[in-house]
Amino acid sequence: MSDRDAAPALVSDLLGSCPLPFTGYDRVLLGHGSGGRLSGELISRLFLPALGNHVLNRLEDQGTCQLPGLSGARIAMTTDSFVVRPIFFPGGDIGKLAVHGTINDLAVGGATPLFLTAAFILEEGLALEDLRRIAMSMRAAADDAGVTLIAADTKVVDRGKGDQVFITTTGLGIVPEDRVLSIAAARPGDKVIVSGTIGDHGIAIMSVREGLEFETALESDTAALHGLSETMLAACDGIRLMRDPTRGGVSSALNETATGSRVGVSLVESALPLRPSVRAACEILGLDPLYVANEGKLIAVVAADDADHLLEVMKSHPLGRDAAIIGEVTGDHRGSVVMRSLAGGTRVVPLLAGEQLPRIC
Amino acid sequence: MSDRDAAPALVSDLLGSCPLPFTGYDRVLLGHGSGGRLSGELISRLFLPALGNHVLNRLEDQGTCQLPGLSGARIAMTTDSFVVRPIFFPGGDIGKLAVHGTINDLAVGGATPLFLTAAFILEEGLALEDLRRIAMSMRAAADDAGVTLIAADTKVVDRGKGDQVFITTTGLGIVPEDRVLSIAAARPGDKVIVSGTIGDHGIAIMSVREGLEFETALESDTAALHGLSETMLAACDGIRLMRDPTRGGVSSALNETATGSRVGVSLVESALPLRPSVRAACEILGLDPLYVANEGKLIAVVAADDADHLLEVMKSHPLGRDAAIIGEVTGDHRGSVVMRSLAGGTRVVPLLAGEQLPRIC
Repeated sequence: MSDRDAAPALVSDLLGSCPLPFTGYDRVLLGHGSGGRLSGELISRLFLPALGNHVLNRLEDQGTCQLPGLSGARIAMTTDSFVVRPIFFPGGDIGKLAVHGTINDLAVGGATPLFLTAAFILEEGLALEDLRRIAMSMRAAADDAGVTLIAADTKVVDRGKGDQVFITTTGLGIVPEDRVLSIAAARPGDKVIVSGTIGDHGIAIMSVREGLEFETALESDTAALHGLSETMLAACDGIRLMRDPTRGGVSSALNETATGSRVGVSLVESALPLRPSVRAACEILGLDPLYVANEGKLIAVVAADDADHLLEVMKSHPLGRDAAIIGEVTGDHRGSVVMRSLAGGTRVVPLLAGEQLPRIC
Repeated sequence: MSDRDAAPALVSDLLGSCPLPFTGYDRVLLGHGSGGRLSGELISRLFLPALGNHVLNRLEDQGTCQLPGLSGARIAMTTDSFVVRPIFFPGGDIGKLAVHGTINDLAVGGATPLFLTAAFILEEGLALEDLRRIAMSMRAAADDAGVTLIAADTKVVDRGKGDQVFITTTGLGIVPEDRVLSIAAARPGDKVIVSGTIGDHGIAIMSVREGLEFETALESDTAALHGLSETMLAACDGIRLMRDPTRGGVSSALNETATGSRVGVSLVESALPLRPSVRAACEILGLDPLYVANEGKLIAVVAADDADHLLEVMKSHPLGRDAAIIGEVTGDHRGSVVMRSLAGGTRVVPLLAGEQLPRIC
């Protein structure tokens, strides 16, 4: 990639609807799946011009619409393919992740998840016992979350044309009438809260891949967040938006917020909740935890006056014990995220430029 | 596979919920994606025991449920992964197929399709121009059908771990209050109608793969069937069920009906609508058109008294011009499909045992 590519105009990249030529490549790169800048280019320059409409163009984690015959409330739908490697990892597996990930994309939109579908793409040669374990894990995750799997599909591809198993889950939920969260709703002065320690999922996956061992086990944080989000929304009117910082990590979630709301976001490094083992692994692997995927965390942007109350509410929930206010929304440096570092300086936290952790979810 | 495997107990295989060991294999075979007997085993012995519930266990092409707040009508959801090769073929491409296939699974359940989601699994190295063509094709197909794509996702897998592009589409539709179609609803005496010529899609794909050329072009029949199905349901109260005979062809659709309704199905070979070019290709390729996939056809089982009227209604629709009554439901040979052949004999039409046309959709 050329240097010209390194300084994108974020607003036009993410929100523009004019098809632009891709600069420097004409084929899909691994980085197009990163959740960072290349993903944004693919969306803004190819998918939105082809597929965009008033729902997709909002670039939320879920699409919400009126459903004929359903008065007041709206439906929310979200879909995600899961291609994580390895398919079993500390704290979870691809099936559990597929259920949680789709529930969470509904939860951060304020939707109550009700129904799931699951489509399996199996590689010829996959051990049926592995598939059974994955299916049982999905069942347990769905039951725990109170959602029902109502449709499924299986395809098989020849050996070497897939990779064991890919799972695509789609979720349907209901958003109450008076609830409007939007990536465009952050306002200068708002506080940014994260629900717990960051980077746990990505580091758990990478430590397996790299064969790292630590004194304390590194486990994925994969969890269904709709109980936490519902508790938060019931307790606090001032929540502007929520995101789940998966691929691309906290950086992508907040850069998308900065772009979507045309605001700046200022983080305080010392406020970021981080497990010592994750910090150590990040140092060994040369990773910045702001870019590492989470699968059981959410970020909330909330009116300043409500922030302390919301933080207390979150801390009282099992999935929010380590919640922390990590920064605020500003009227400066609109469209970007900056961080005051432990050393005292301030640096920009750009969208991930290439690919850091392929196939993390 | 052993001979013992060749005589499955269809009812217990498809409807049983008791996990049985798989006989003769412990890994995923290509045939598990065939839509035939091996697919049924995977569903009955692995997926249903793990994931089954009162919706999934019905084994319909779509799951239907009450939605809180929606009185009377039910929602229907369906999901399908598309892995067809080649990704562009005469009459369509993987994107158009993904839109039509999901619409059709809703349509045959009597649902009005409203919303779609699409999840893309891209292989590193896919030409972006191919992806753009596919996305534009999906847009055109969705617009033509009057459905809105409201959520999407993209993942990228490393070269050699996928195959250009896989697309998973999920559809949401509404089923009117008084409409109940069910794979368990066929009754002896009912007539079986197919909406047009059979085998067109599978043969179009196979002729590309095999480099066959015919005087008349072989094109996929891919089409959205909800206009036809709505016309049929509006005109005729006697429709028991509809199926779209995709993978596994007419054979799978009718064997599933025979099992689900605990009836027999008797076909008349001379009544099967078949293009001469498809007949010729089937002879060259050694394929039985009853097992070849269709992507723009439906099968309806209808009360005998309504059959002639329904046939006329179908023939007046552009997608039903070649509709024909191809057989009837019987109280004999329950659980199986038989066919009176052109030569005058009668033969059983079993579920496809292995894999005939891998990655046809």
